[in-house]
Formats: sequence, C-alpha cells, structure tokens
Amino acid sequence: DQKPIDLNDPFSKDPFRLPVFRINSKKPFNAEPPIELLTDSYITPNELFYVRNHLPVPEIDPDSHRISVDLGDSSIQLSLEDLKTKFKPVTITTTIQCAGNRRQEMSDFKTKGLSWGPCAIGTARWTGARVRDILLSAGFDPDDKTIKHVHFNGFDDDITNTSYGASIPKQKAMSLDGDVIIAYKMNGVDIPRDHGYPVRAIVPGYVGARNVKWLRQITVGSDESTSHWQMNDYKAFSPSTTFETANYKKAPSIQEMPVISAISVPKPGSIIDPEDGMVEVKGYAWSGGGRDIMRVDVSADGGNTWQEASLTKDDPDADDSAHCWAWTLWTAEVPVAAGKVEIICKAIDSANNCQPEWIGPIWNLRGFLTNAWHRVNVTVEN
Amino acid sequence: DQKPIDLNDPFSKDPFRLPVFRINSKKPFNAEPPIELLTDSYITPNELFYVRNHLPVPEIDPDSHRISVDLGDSSIQLSLEDLKTKFKPVTITTTIQCAGNRRQEMSDFKTKGLSWGPCAIGTARWTGARVRDILLSAGFDPDDKTIKHVHFNGFDDDITNTSYGASIPKQKAMSLDGDVIIAYKMNGVDIPRDHGYPVRAIVPGYVGARNVKWLRQITVGSDESTSHWQMNDYKAFSPSTTFETANYKKAPSIQEMPVISAISVPKPGSIIDPEDGMVEVKGYAWSGGGRDIMRVDVSADGGNTWQEASLTKDDPDADDSAHCWAWTLWTAEVPVAAGKVEIICKAIDSANNCQPEWIGPIWNLRGFLTNAWHRVNVTVEN
Ligand SMILES: [Mo]
Ligand SMILES: [Mo]
Repeated sequence: DQKPIDLNDPFSKDPFRLPVFRINSKKPFNAEPPIELLTDSYITPNELFYVRNHLPVPEIDPDSHRISVDLGDSSIQLSLEDLKTKFKPVTITTTIQCAGNRRQEMSDFKTKGLSWGPCAIGTARWTGARVRDILLSAGFDPDDKTIKHVHFNGFDDDITNTSYGASIPKQKAMSLDGDVIIAYKMNGVDIPRDHGYPVRAIVPGYVGARNVKWLRQITVGSDESTSHWQMNDYKAFSPSTTFETANYKKAPSIQEMPVISAISVPKPGSIIDPEDGMVEVKGYAWSGGGRDIMRVDVSADGGNTWQEASLTKDDPDADDSAHCWAWTLWTAEVPVAAGKVEIICKAIDSANNCQPEWIGPIWNLRGFLTNAWHRVNVTVEN
Repeated sequence: DQKPIDLNDPFSKDPFRLPVFRINSKKPFNAEPPIELLTDSYITPNELFYVRNHLPVPEIDPDSHRISVDLGDSSIQLSLEDLKTKFKPVTITTTIQCAGNRRQEMSDFKTKGLSWGPCAIGTARWTGARVRDILLSAGFDPDDKTIKHVHFNGFDDDITNTSYGASIPKQKAMSLDGDVIIAYKMNGVDIPRDHGYPVRAIVPGYVGARNVKWLRQITVGSDESTSHWQMNDYKAFSPSTTFETANYKKAPSIQEMPVISAISVPKPGSIIDPEDGMVEVKGYAWSGGGRDIMRVDVSADGGNTWQEASLTKDDPDADDSAHCWAWTLWTAEVPVAAGKVEIICKAIDSANNCQPEWIGPIWNLRGFLTNAWHRVNVTVEN
C-alpha cells in the first residue's frame, strides 16, 4: 500500500523504519521496539532503537554541515572532519531513555503525551568528541562563574523556523566524569538519520530529551535554554498539581533519571507452563547519573517473597566511561502458583534508591518518570 | 551522681557529651540530638552532631600524630602541620548520615543494630586537604587500572588491636568532583574528639561509616578493605534474606545514600491547635551522591492531597564543593481535619528518585537505609 509522496508534507523526507516498531505517533515519528526483542542483546541494534522525534527529520549534507560553537565574544565552526580529527575520540556506552517511557501505565489517569510502553529505552556505544574538549578549544573559561548552562540546538525546524533545543548544567558538560560527547558514530557506524545524522549530543545518565540530535550549535549561558522543550515540557510536578496550577517557571527541568526496571519476559497475557513450579522472568534495570544496578528483586506472590535476579552487564571498563551509564539485563527463576499471577520486579541502584510500589504517589500531569514496580499479569497452567 | 573512673574501662577516656542527647549505646557511645533541635539551624552545632562510635575514642597527641600514606612501593608520613600547609585547604559543606538512621521504624520487625530515631544525621562545614592531592603527592598513579579502592584506617582499636577501617571506590576518591577530603576542622574549629580529632576522612554523599575518624592510614588496593565494617557490616539485603541466607561476600557495600526526608515539627504525639485549619510542618530532606532536593510533598490526609514545602538551603556556592552534598530544610503549611491525624512527608531528589511509601519492601535484616515516607501521628483540636 504505497502512498504517493506529498512534497508539501514536511515529514515526506523521513527515513525508512522497520515495520516491527510499535508506533505512538507517525508525524513526528515516535516508536518503540517490541519488548521481546528489546532485551535480546545488551547493545540495542540501531534499527531497533526507539525513535523519539519532536519535528521532521532534517536532511543534512555531512560535507557542508558545520557545528557552531558560540561563546558570545568568540565563535568557532567545526566540520564533521574537524570533530573527528581535532579531538580525541572517546567511546561511551550509555542507555538513553525517554522521559515518557512507560507513560501508558499512567493512562488510567489523565496525562498528556505519547502513550509509550516500556520500550522507549535502548543502549548503544557512542563515539565522538568530549564537549569539554570542544568548549576548551573554543576558548571557554571553565571558571567563569556567570556561566551555568551549556545549550545544544538542533537542525530540526518547525514551521515557524524554531529548532529543537535543550540545555544541561555546566558542571555536567565540563566534568571529566560527565562523559558528555558530540557523537558521530552509533555502535561503530554513522548515526542513522532517525538518531541524529550526522552528529548529536550524548548526555549519559540524563533524560533522552537533552541528547539533542542533528546538532548545529553549542552555546553557553547564565540561564537554561529558552526552548519550549526546556521551559514548558520535560518538567515533573506533584500528584496534586493540575494543568491549572502547574507553574512551569518554578518547576525544575528533568535532567538525571531515577532507577527503573521492567519485565520483558513473559509478556502480559501469556499462558505459562511452569517447570517444577518455576517460571523464568527476564528484563532490564537502569538508573541515571552513572549509578549501577545493585539488585533486582522479582515476586510472583504480591511481594510477600522476593527472588534475587542474576545480573548481566557488559564489561563497563571496555569503553572510556568514568561511570556506569548503561543498563543491566537480568534473569530470575521465580516460584509460581497455578492460576492468575501478577509478576513484579523492582530494582535497587548503587545509591540504594528504590522504585515506588505503584503509580499513585508519583503520578504527574504529563506522565513523566513512570518508574513504579513493573507488573505483568499472566496465567499459570496446572 | 558521679561515678569513680574505672581505669580498666577502655571507654574511661571518652569525652564529655551534652546530657540532651538521646543515647542508643553508652560504650561505645552512640547518640542523637533531639529532633526539635536538629532542624533549628542549617549547620548542625558540633555539640549536637550525632555521635556514632564503633570503639572507644582514642587519645591522640596532635603534635606527634602522623598519617601514613602507604602505596605498597612507596610511603609518606604526614604531620597535622604538613596536612595544613602542603595542600590547598578546601571547605566542603556536607550532610553525614548513619546507615542506621531511622532504624527504629523497622523495629516492628526483627533487626540487629542500634535503635536510631531520625536524628542520626547532621550537616557541617569541613576543612581539609583533598585525598586526591595527598595521593598524587605520595606518587600515586591515577591511571593504574589494578587499583580500584582507597582505604582509610582509624586509630581507634578494639581489645584485639584491630582498628576501624573502611574503603571507597578509587573513582570517588580521585575525582575532582568527589570532594573527598581529610578534614582537620569542623565548622571552623578543631574537630571534637567524638568526631575524629585531630583528622578524619570526609566522603560527601556516602554513608557515614566511610567517613573514617581518627585517621592514621591511607592505602590503596585492588580490593575493598577487609575490615569487619566493610565486609560483614554496612551491607543491605532483599526483604526475603534471613540471617541464615545472607551472603555477605556477594552483597555490595553500602556507599552512596538514597533520598530521605523526615518531619521534625510537630513531634509525634503532639496536640495541635490549628490556625485557620492549617498546621505548620518542618523537617529535613537529603540525598546522597551530590544530588539536590527538588521537591518535598507533605500530606495530612493519607496521601490524597499533597502540599509542596518551601525549601531552604544555604548558598551551595559558598564552599569548594562541586556538588550539592548538604541537606535541605523545609516548611509546609498543611490543611488538617480535627482528630487523630497522620502527617506524611516524601522528597524527590535531582535524579527524580523518590522515597518508598512504607518499610515493608525495603526491610532488611540489619535495618539499614530506612528511607520510607516519614509519618508523625498527632491529635488536632477542634
Ligand atoms: Mo523524551
Ligand atoms: Mo553508621
């Protein structure tokens, strides 16, 4: 069923995507892979990495593209070749997660946003140049106390010629431990168009929204980015805050992500034939800020008893990361009774933070940061 | 009621303490201040800072005391004067919290440990030399991949001449952002004897137990400290782990601390005369790892509605900290109904981590890391 291309459609030049995606929005394209494929490999294949686009995918000529580093009183222009040759290449393995991952579970309540399942998350090895090195080479003074934020602006435009933009704290961008890079490779190949070709910001441990794609400009400032997505989106509120009382000016931007986990096997609604009364449960766990996963507990009896999962992670020393930015995959053998069974998982990160038991106390009007215990309902055969 | 000093008692040389403390153990001395005094000032007065001693308080002559920095193939000895003059002094404001803070709330279940209330926490400005600078001056190679931990050993001995010891990851000790120091001043004066006179380690954002007092040695190693307190204490387990099944070898050491909060006003059991149906609630909130507090929610109706608290913190730029290591004090005006009322608080940190609703899912046999919502029961008059 091929449709003719509408040349007036700003999305007509969007790239091809695998039909296997669960699509939450076509224009802009927002889609997640099926959960049974998500945890099949530690590194998410580029073709299966969730896509979160705010605007049409821009067409960028890699030869003429320049990244403008604007510091007010000075400015440099970097070609892709400059980025690859003038700075030490570093490779960082990081999980990236959408602020709206698992929002669907808040949908019993009224929320505004794309109805993501638990797969708006993925893990890749990104190669690029440190933002720290780029800013220093442009003459940035890291001790300038008036500068508190580093801004990234994208090449993706809306019809008013407003581009996507975001900012992160200077501390994160300039720290040797922060591992913030401008990436030109995703898992060893050119970054696919949906993921920012030819260059994007990688901000490990922070919300996906700050990992600006199709990067065209880096700036610095005393304040956060004035972009819509920094100021009036990607902020969380108390469960008692309504659309009428939400004060976007006062609310802090979502930056570092909290501990989360999800069950990928078995799928919701499965009918399970247990082996010696046991079922195998698999999933992922992750925390932001470079925190590792210390433990994953799994229960099939409403939390009365918990089984510790076996944790799998790739060697974290295999890349140039200062911290543990990437997820942990896990497997647990859990005793189950026959009948309707709810399987639950919860993770503890290396700062001993835990996940909340249910959605209620973390509910927020935009449905961000859904990190309650993950629950999958199945039927266990006799 | 003065008792004669028993010279055979290893605790006979312990210092004087204010009678206002709530004492959890006399020998070794373990005590916390009353909650109505705890949040009266942002900086905890030295005399009111909770005391957590594992052994008798040693008597140390500051003139002859040496800190031995032992790197295997090289070693240096530092006097107090060396520490003060050979390294750039830095001042770090940090909250320190005992792993067992609020353990009392887990006492409905069987736990092992001192029955701390919510006041085994305090905030001070510590002045000293960076461990990073000390190790580098002793010839430590930060790129030595075989070294993964930095160890601190104390001067406090038990009867077998085993001293208190602990270790932290090299990454934390060597990072410019880690702010790990060997302190010789607490709030501008010599460190009191109960808090480590003349020198102690300060490991901001980590559990109190790693902030080794009466420091006599710094070493490095491929493994963690073999001290009892690193290997067989200060570890957390799943709620389903028993004393019989606990595997101390496999369990990770508690290092970074999770988000916590507590109510200091009103006190449990208070009878409150509300003003226009409102009651003023005060308390503290803190998170480890340099994370700030983003929001504190307070409820007096079982969590149906939440009031956002006003947050107070001292200027975080007033010291040499790279991160937000110190607590947030807060005040909220909460509507209350007449009768028996439970007041609840919960905090969100800058990584969007939250506190668990109740003790059950985080219960662990040692009663560590009690960071559930804090609840205070009061009676509200008509
Ligand atoms: Mo997102
Ligand atoms: Mo402690």
